[in-house]
Amino acid sequence: MKARDFLDTTDLSPTEFAQILDLAAQLKSGRLRADQALRGRVLTMVFMDPSLRTRTSFEVAMVRHGGHAVVLEPGRSSWALETRRGVVMDGASVEHIAEAARVLGRYADAVALRAFPKGTSWDEERHDRTLRDFAQYCEKPLINLESTRRHPCQGLADALLLRERLGVTQGRRFTLTWGPHPKALPTAVPASAALAAAQLGMQVTIAHPPGFDLDADDISAIERAAQGAGGSLQITHDQSAALNGAEAVYVKSWGAVRCFGRPDDEAALRVPHRGWKFSTALLNRAAPSAFVMHCLPVRRNVEIDEDVLDGPQAAVIDQAENRLHVQRALLLRMLADESALGNEVCS
Amino acid sequence: MKARDFLDTTDLSPTEFAQILDLAAQLKSGRLRADQALRGRVLTMVFMDPSLRTRTSFEVAMVRHGGHAVVLEPGRSSWALETRRGVVMDGASVEHIAEAARVLGRYADAVALRAFPKGTSWDEERHDRTLRDFAQYCEKPLINLESTRRHPCQGLADALLLRERLGVTQGRRFTLTWGPHPKALPTAVPASAALAAAQLGMQVTIAHPPGFDLDADDISAIERAAQGAGGSLQITHDQSAALNGAEAVYVKSWGAVRCFGRPDDEAALRVPHRGWKFSTALLNRAAPSAFVMHCLPVRRNVEIDEDVLDGPQAAVIDQAENRLHVQRALLLRMLADESALGNEVCS
Amino acid sequence: MKARDFLDTTDLSPTEFAQILDLAAQLKSGRLRADQALRGRVLTMVFMDPSLRTRTSFEVAMVRHGGHAVVLEPGRSSWALETRRGVVMDGASVEHIAEAARVLGRYADAVALRAFPKGTSWDEERHDRTLRDFAQYCEKPLINLESTRRHPCQGLADALLLRERLGVTQGRRFTLTWGPHPKALPTAVPASAALAAAQLGMQVTIAHPPGFDLDADDISAIERAAQGAGGSLQITHDQSAALNGAEAVYVKSWGAVRCFGRPDDEAALRVPHRGWKFSTALLNRAAPSAFVMHCLPVRRNVEIDEDVLDGPQAAVIDQAENRLHVQRALLLRMLADESALGNEVCS
Repeated sequence: MKARDFLDTTDLSPTEFAQILDLAAQLKSGRLRADQALRGRVLTMVFMDPSLRTRTSFEVAMVRHGGHAVVLEPGRSSWALETRRGVVMDGASVEHIAEAARVLGRYADAVALRAFPKGTSWDEERHDRTLRDFAQYCEKPLINLESTRRHPCQGLADALLLRERLGVTQGRRFTLTWGPHPKALPTAVPASAALAAAQLGMQVTIAHPPGFDLDADDISAIERAAQGAGGSLQITHDQSAALNGAEAVYVKSWGAVRCFGRPDDEAALRVPHRGWKFSTALLNRAAPSAFVMHCLPVRRNVEIDEDVLDGPQAAVIDQAENRLHVQRALLLRMLADESALGNEVCS
Repeated sequence: MKARDFLDTTDLSPTEFAQILDLAAQLKSGRLRADQALRGRVLTMVFMDPSLRTRTSFEVAMVRHGGHAVVLEPGRSSWALETRRGVVMDGASVEHIAEAARVLGRYADAVALRAFPKGTSWDEERHDRTLRDFAQYCEKPLINLESTRRHPCQGLADALLLRERLGVTQGRRFTLTWGPHPKALPTAVPASAALAAAQLGMQVTIAHPPGFDLDADDISAIERAAQGAGGSLQITHDQSAALNGAEAVYVKSWGAVRCFGRPDDEAALRVPHRGWKFSTALLNRAAPSAFVMHCLPVRRNVEIDEDVLDGPQAAVIDQAENRLHVQRALLLRMLADESALGNEVCS
Repeated sequence: MKARDFLDTTDLSPTEFAQILDLAAQLKSGRLRADQALRGRVLTMVFMDPSLRTRTSFEVAMVRHGGHAVVLEPGRSSWALETRRGVVMDGASVEHIAEAARVLGRYADAVALRAFPKGTSWDEERHDRTLRDFAQYCEKPLINLESTRRHPCQGLADALLLRERLGVTQGRRFTLTWGPHPKALPTAVPASAALAAAQLGMQVTIAHPPGFDLDADDISAIERAAQGAGGSLQITHDQSAALNGAEAVYVKSWGAVRCFGRPDDEAALRVPHRGWKFSTALLNRAAPSAFVMHCLPVRRNVEIDEDVLDGPQAAVIDQAENRLHVQRALLLRMLADESALGNEVCS
């Protein structure tokens, strides 16, 4: 995977996907240390939107292997970045990503970018142009830290948790259930979580209120991934039925893409569904061994009741910890000299 | 002290308190280097309020021993954190410390938190709930970078300076004198400074205008510490008398706790006392060998005249430098493998 | 150059200037690695204004040689700094540079400062007091990351590019041409770029609209440098003539110093000159081998047409990359033990 971008978990072949999870498990267990495998290597992270887990876990991932991460926040600690092509830059944006991406690529061994949607037009933003353009301009590998369409590092962490908890994942029941939220959130996480479960060959069920369909291309990608790995995809508006017998439950809120750019219409569609809040009663519909996932940050008592979050079936902290380990694996595969890893990685 | 929090200098036994100061002195002098004793170790610092010295000196302390510090600023570079228990999170706060503290503990070897009071209700805030809750949720040791009630790393730095300048500290005269300031500042620093002097067995005098009493529990803690170490505590409203013969003078402003949450009343109480500004004339009342301490940042010509700050009796820069050395000692005791330190630390 | 500040390229003797460029070229080519020559060393950077290239390239420069950079942003992540002397600090500024510079010098091996002009009075600000005072207070070497008058690290990067592209620089034709911009930018970069070309002995031409003269002291400094190195300086208002036969073209916008502090007057002077935008047509007046420089960030289609920026004669990305290599050289000369560099640096 050297010298390649990592923009989506489907950029990985099934073999590569499994190899990263295997490597992450070895690193997490301490069987593989590779303490200095990234010595002298630099990852530059560009956060056009805020972050806690992503920023911290990537910075620590580099440091754990002797490397370093530079953290940039355009518009705060550095210049606001222009992303439109061909624009006459006489407004507020000081620098174009055409220059920024190329220059940052010269200074670092890899670059990582977080760029959320701006909420103007889905027809426009669904192309993930900021991420794609940045990748095209940058001469070094680019890692997607969450774009309009995908959060692939979260998907890898989710996949590692599913493998840890379930062992064999093929044919097991994964339910993604929509949650209420005071804001219209992006769809990158639910799409990436469902994709990851599909890539593991699970029976994926997505439950959401009417009008909250994911982008049709996301659904096609999840279906393709499920078919390729021996799994399946079902979509329903019946939350309760979707949870019946679920072995893994993923709660996540997202906004109605069909109302993208029209916040009042979107809120009118979203607000009536506060009853989708995930509770102990809903959890009791799932399998007794079921565990509850969420990407965090979570709105306590709005998306999920605190009884669930603080209870024994919550897996959200372990899931967040896995961000660190899958990213260590990703960075080692992307940036480490094979000689520095020796036979360790090949095992 | 491994795997224990550091929230207050009184968390340390008298022996531990002395050991940290001894270790800090060794590190400062270069007799002990321990260049790689924190290799691969990560400290994550969470600044809910701004910092210059604390942030820089902790980051450098980790680096000087081969480790690394991650710096997070919730509300700026990362999500705003909710601290109230049981709250329905449908407002502006995106993440609860229940999740943030647990997740950050998974990524780091130790976590550090700065959380100033919000100025609403002293009855409420005096419990230092944000710090205490964070410590409870976080699975790794937590360091207090200044909370509502304490700034223990400043206390350690103050204690190191007092030992350096005075040699034997027991029975020596330490005067903490209140200073004017355009704002109502917290009481964490004056309480921690008086505590540190008391833990060194000094004769502590606190001088402040009427109405500026520290919290009664702080006074009790200072008295207990002084008694335990052979010192004493006196409180007076007579600044001039308090300075007579003082061997160490600590100037510091703080707001009237009794008016906490009522800024207009507090300002009416504080503003008339501009004459408490520390000047050369006041310094001349102290012992000829006296030195002047302040935690910094200092309001020049408001709290202390610049003649004093730029004069030969000012110890404020040496005092600030000591932040680095006591924190190196603290971090080595908290995070270093004993094997990495070898016999050096035991000496 | 150990233990000396680096505030201006003219702080360097001609020999030192050439040595830094030689060392930078060795580092860029990989002939010299010096991977651990800055091990355990800390550079603290204070950004009173935002940065992308400067911050990233300095942080990476330290890391590439085993060192570390602390990044502070007063007014954001740390306290706002007061710079006026003798002021009664009862306003918004929390800390004076008299303390901040001294304390930061205690924690680090070197300190670096970015402080742009505030746009009030040129008579006042042209003395670069913030930079000069910081250097005076700080006990460690200070690096200028762009002040009111100079951006010497950019000057070094420009010089390295000119040497790489031209080989022999003496007597070669360098044209600095003013560009339009929505804002009145500082003059530090054009002054430093012209100085660097002059220090290389080039025939320097500066073209700008009437009223945009650089400070008379800057012109004198450029003339002196040119004379000392066998070059020359010409100033013209005829952009087209200035470009005829130019071998290196540097496009840069700056505001009219004569209207400093009067933004409406300045805008009235600047706005009519939008036609100075650099285009392919203008580039075609230069020598066929000419290359186009700009310090970045650049306003696409305002300062320079994107056809030029994306074309084969643009050197702006290589120029930005050189920031990294000249700063590695500067830091190694300033902070590395000679023993760590061994004979490598002497070659």
